[in-house]
Amino acid sequence: MLNWLKRVLVGRPLRSDRLGETLLSKRLALPIFASDPLSSVAYATQEILLVLTLGGLAYLFLAPWVGLAVVVLLAVVVASYRQVVRAYPSGGGSYEVASRNLGPSAGLVVAAALLVDYIMTVAVSVAAGVDNVISAVPSLNTHRVAICVGFVFALMAMNLRGVRESGKTFAWPTYLFITGVLVMVALGLGRAVAGHAPVAESAGWQVRPEQVGLTGLALALLTLRAFASGCTALTGVEAISNGVPAFKPPKAENAARTMLAMGVVAITLFAGITALALIAKVRVAEHTCDLIGFPGNCATDPQRTVIAQLAAAVFGNNSFGFFVIQATTALILILAANTAFNGFPLLGAILAQDRYLPRQLHTRGDRLAFSNGIIILAAIAAVLIWVFDGSVTRLIQLYILGVFTSFTLSQAGMVRHWNRALADEQDPKVRRRLHRSRVINALGGVLTALVLVIVLATKFTHGAYLVVIAVPVLFALMRAIHGHYERVSAELEPEPGGVVMPARVHAVVLVSRVHRPTLQALAYAQATRPDSLTAVTVSINAEEVARLQQQWADRDLNVPLTILDSPYREITDPVLDYVNRLREEGPRDLVVVYIPEYVVGRWWEQLLHNQSALRLKARLLFQRRVMVVSVPWQLESSVRRPRREQVRGGRRPEDRKPVAAGRRES
Amino acid sequence: MLNWLKRVLVGRPLRSDRLGETLLSKRLALPIFASDPLSSVAYATQEILLVLTLGGLAYLFLAPWVGLAVVVLLAVVVASYRQVVRAYPSGGGSYEVASRNLGPSAGLVVAAALLVDYIMTVAVSVAAGVDNVISAVPSLNTHRVAICVGFVFALMAMNLRGVRESGKTFAWPTYLFITGVLVMVALGLGRAVAGHAPVAESAGWQVRPEQVGLTGLALALLTLRAFASGCTALTGVEAISNGVPAFKPPKAENAARTMLAMGVVAITLFAGITALALIAKVRVAEHTCDLIGFPGNCATDPQRTVIAQLAAAVFGNNSFGFFVIQATTALILILAANTAFNGFPLLGAILAQDRYLPRQLHTRGDRLAFSNGIIILAAIAAVLIWVFDGSVTRLIQLYILGVFTSFTLSQAGMVRHWNRALADEQDPKVRRRLHRSRVINALGGVLTALVLVIVLATKFTHGAYLVVIAVPVLFALMRAIHGHYERVSAELEPEPGGVVMPARVHAVVLVSRVHRPTLQALAYAQATRPDSLTAVTVSINAEEVARLQQQWADRDLNVPLTILDSPYREITDPVLDYVNRLREEGPRDLVVVYIPEYVVGRWWEQLLHNQSALRLKARLLFQRRVMVVSVPWQLESSVRRPRREQVRGGRRPEDRKPVAAGRRES
Repeated sequence: MLNWLKRVLVGRPLRSDRLGETLLSKRLALPIFASDPLSSVAYATQEILLVLTLGGLAYLFLAPWVGLAVVVLLAVVVASYRQVVRAYPSGGGSYEVASRNLGPSAGLVVAAALLVDYIMTVAVSVAAGVDNVISAVPSLNTHRVAICVGFVFALMAMNLRGVRESGKTFAWPTYLFITGVLVMVALGLGRAVAGHAPVAESAGWQVRPEQVGLTGLALALLTLRAFASGCTALTGVEAISNGVPAFKPPKAENAARTMLAMGVVAITLFAGITALALIAKVRVAEHTCDLIGFPGNCATDPQRTVIAQLAAAVFGNNSFGFFVIQATTALILILAANTAFNGFPLLGAILAQDRYLPRQLHTRGDRLAFSNGIIILAAIAAVLIWVFDGSVTRLIQLYILGVFTSFTLSQAGMVRHWNRALADEQDPKVRRRLHRSRVINALGGVLTALVLVIVLATKFTHGAYLVVIAVPVLFALMRAIHGHYERVSAELEPEPGGVVMPARVHAVVLVSRVHRPTLQALAYAQATRPDSLTAVTVSINAEEVARLQQQWADRDLNVPLTILDSPYREITDPVLDYVNRLREEGPRDLVVVYIPEYVVGRWWEQLLHNQSALRLKARLLFQRRVMVVSVPWQLESSVRRPRREQVRGGRRPEDRKPVAAGRRES
Repeated sequence: MLNWLKRVLVGRPLRSDRLGETLLSKRLALPIFASDPLSSVAYATQEILLVLTLGGLAYLFLAPWVGLAVVVLLAVVVASYRQVVRAYPSGGGSYEVASRNLGPSAGLVVAAALLVDYIMTVAVSVAAGVDNVISAVPSLNTHRVAICVGFVFALMAMNLRGVRESGKTFAWPTYLFITGVLVMVALGLGRAVAGHAPVAESAGWQVRPEQVGLTGLALALLTLRAFASGCTALTGVEAISNGVPAFKPPKAENAARTMLAMGVVAITLFAGITALALIAKVRVAEHTCDLIGFPGNCATDPQRTVIAQLAAAVFGNNSFGFFVIQATTALILILAANTAFNGFPLLGAILAQDRYLPRQLHTRGDRLAFSNGIIILAAIAAVLIWVFDGSVTRLIQLYILGVFTSFTLSQAGMVRHWNRALADEQDPKVRRRLHRSRVINALGGVLTALVLVIVLATKFTHGAYLVVIAVPVLFALMRAIHGHYERVSAELEPEPGGVVMPARVHAVVLVSRVHRPTLQALAYAQATRPDSLTAVTVSINAEEVARLQQQWADRDLNVPLTILDSPYREITDPVLDYVNRLREEGPRDLVVVYIPEYVVGRWWEQLLHNQSALRLKARLLFQRRVMVVSVPWQLESSVRRPRREQVRGGRRPEDRKPVAAGRRES
């Protein structure tokens, strides 16, 4: 049943040798990896306007300059990452650059920051997408959180199906969005040039409190905070650098070209929307009730997003064009979360391979996707959305801090990379190219470091402190996991000498009654020809022990029966004591404990059996020179039940043949 | 840490041979088993008044007659159960009587009804106790549910310490309560006789809606509903019959005497409180806002209980006497729940012994109490209190239905019991005694059956339908568990012939890398001298397999290495296929699968290892003629950790000696 559900949601399992088929062309890679930076234009402009409005409508005159700063930054970062993609095509992205050039700790900081940011990408993008759905259908406002969480899990299901299928599904909305917004911007600007500029529904609204005459530090802070919020437009730029191995060859070149295309499109869209918003005099405020002139109930009715107001102003409210823009914006935003669904599991797998995360994250699922990473990402993002009521403005405070941490460190790493290359290089022509590359990355590093400081200073108290806590915690956790794996690995290294063979083997069979599982366990234990064989029972109830002794004598079993007293009605300690005494008989002796177990077909039946055996097994495993043998007895109901066959029946018979054919002797 | 907490709450473990010490004298048994029927006088009167007031204050004239009916019923039921105690002293009570005389199905119905009722006893008694606490300290009203749940878990902790200690703790409040209420009733009635009767604070209040002139069926229904509610006074009467084995010898005679004492005291208290409530003109209503004249906010302030109003009228409001009555009433009510904490686990253990419930319920814990039953009871009662907001009036609707089901069936069983005895008996003197006994039980059976019909008719829609669902569900569940155990037991019965010894033993060692656990597992497998020995690995990653083959060759291990292909990156199916092919080589061949396992000291470390081994083990256990061997490798961190020693260190060394001394060879 559960298996059937999995098949419907996820699809048939794929063979490992089909991994090559899932590589991406540039046309498919652009929507998959670039939907995040492209879609963030849908909220970046809005967040800039919102912060400036905190001072008052008068300060919107700063918006073009803030927007210009974001555009310049975006261009520099895209240029920087094109260098990364070419220099490190293996897909480790910022993590690999920082690890190789600045040491493993720097790499780990980047990894922790990126993991946090991928989660935030899912939360913010889905919340912003749902915001645009609600702008078109305001009555959905009461179900905001439920709709967000539903989308997160839908994305999870799609990604569990594997990278290629999700690429196809996600390609057309991205292209539709780009086309739609370009048409809208062109029409709007064209009309403005022609003298009858579009006017937003909110153009006449006022905001309170209107603070006039901000100067000096206060003005600078307001501007910087607006800039920090606008920097959300840069999130996800690094996604391509983490996804290079998914490209068709030549991987690095294709990835670099896709990144350039993405940068050009993102800058065009962002600049266009910001210009149009200022021309159409769009007004937004953090609290709807601060808007004087807002129709309806400001406590319950939602504000419309900037993009919704623009679409309404250009195409007409509730026109066909309006709904096309809203639908594609919502779609691309929700699918932008997909960037993270590609990046997070891939980074998780790389970290698991480097033994910084549990190795389960490096296992490919039925459909060749890193299933565990996908599920973890969806779960955490859903919790964040729920905690922050699906509010973009609240979630965005946690965002970008991580992105800019990894930006800064990876650019610093690249500068170091070029320094090393320069030290080895003599050819003046090549040296000139390397110099130019170093300048680009140095500029990128300095600018992103500056943004990092600005973000930290202006957003810390608004929620970013959570990220300031989460990243070091994640860092410490990954260090601890790594330390554990390293210690274990060192400990497991075989010694130069041969293996010490046990001198004698003592077999101990645990019995409670004389029934078929017990007799089977005795027979199997005898079949292994141990040096000594004893049946052991723990006496809790005197009557039961007497009955057992009687049965033992009646059946004439030629195995001695040892009875252990247990004054505290508990079986573990007496058995452990007995096993320890046996072990002490010889320093190289091995004790093998046989435990007869019932195997039942239904989970609730399991509750009725084997409880004390389980506890005993767990304790015995802590003893050296002890082996624990489960001697299963399959009850009728478990054998009749075709559970095992069902699981295997889910695969086609012809797929199973190679298992047998592939058997090799070494 | 967890162990230390357990020791503080529950105490040192007790040796099984101290079981005899926990038997009860009559003086201790009365408060333990009789606190339920004694304490229910604290709410039985109130519920009668409350139902009659639904018609209007005019109908309170019926209260004495309803009260009288309850007293008569109580006397008859006590007399009936004194017969049960004498005839069936083994403590099965109603369950045993019904099973033996009416068949196992009737017994199981009784058992299901009793289990439900024990749970309700805890919920109702604790809720009523907290009601009286709130009558004295009204400001606690907002924390009603939390206080109730706290008391339930305090009772659980006390009972986990064992039956005798809880008896001592609970004895003095019961005796204080009896004395206090007797003094209050005597004083109040005395003053009434002297001409200046006590007047309740609510004597002048009116209720709405006042329905005048109810006649015929409506009047009869009101009366019957009041009577049904008043029958709560009878709950718990059967507790003594279920607890006979806990009495000191002569067990049956002591139990019968305790029951008589309990009946006399209960009838006196109930009659006294009802009379005094009518004399003092106490007014109560289902909804506080129906009371005209109620001071304070009827939506949030609590009504005071009948007993609180009486204590205030007789001793003066907030006087010393008032607080003594409130404190002892609250205490005895909360401790009345203790009746159920004695009865439920005992009945559970009997049912587990008869294989109707999981056998874990028949295991005595560290302090010789049936710990699992105690914990289950506390958990379910806490949930019920939480769901019904700790309201006595709402919880009481679910009550008594179960009690009267078991009353009726056990009395019917007793009639059958006497019929059989009469058939075998010739002595006319004995026959006269048997005849008299049969009359008592027949009368009890008819009356309780009548009450059962009344309760069902008047309370069904008020919540009793939940019990009408729960009892059959529980009945079916116990039947299913019994069926399972019976099937298993039949299946495990050894065949007359000897045991079939395996012909050949194939050892299969699962390897992933050449490290110490692998080498150890190979050595141990070799030590058991199998007929064939193969190392098996599953190929998921071609590089890893090549490295393994290289290491295998380098170390010159003289064990063949078989490589199984796994196109779906999954280890379970290829190994199962391989094992099945080995099994098919001979119909009596045994396959032993050795799985090297790491043992780590901390639970979170466990998450980092052995995940796929666990799944494989679970699947292998479903195969016939397969044994699964866990070859543990204790990592340093697990050995350094003194966890096992801590657990055993909790017991005194001298207690451990008999374990060794008690070893016997049979």
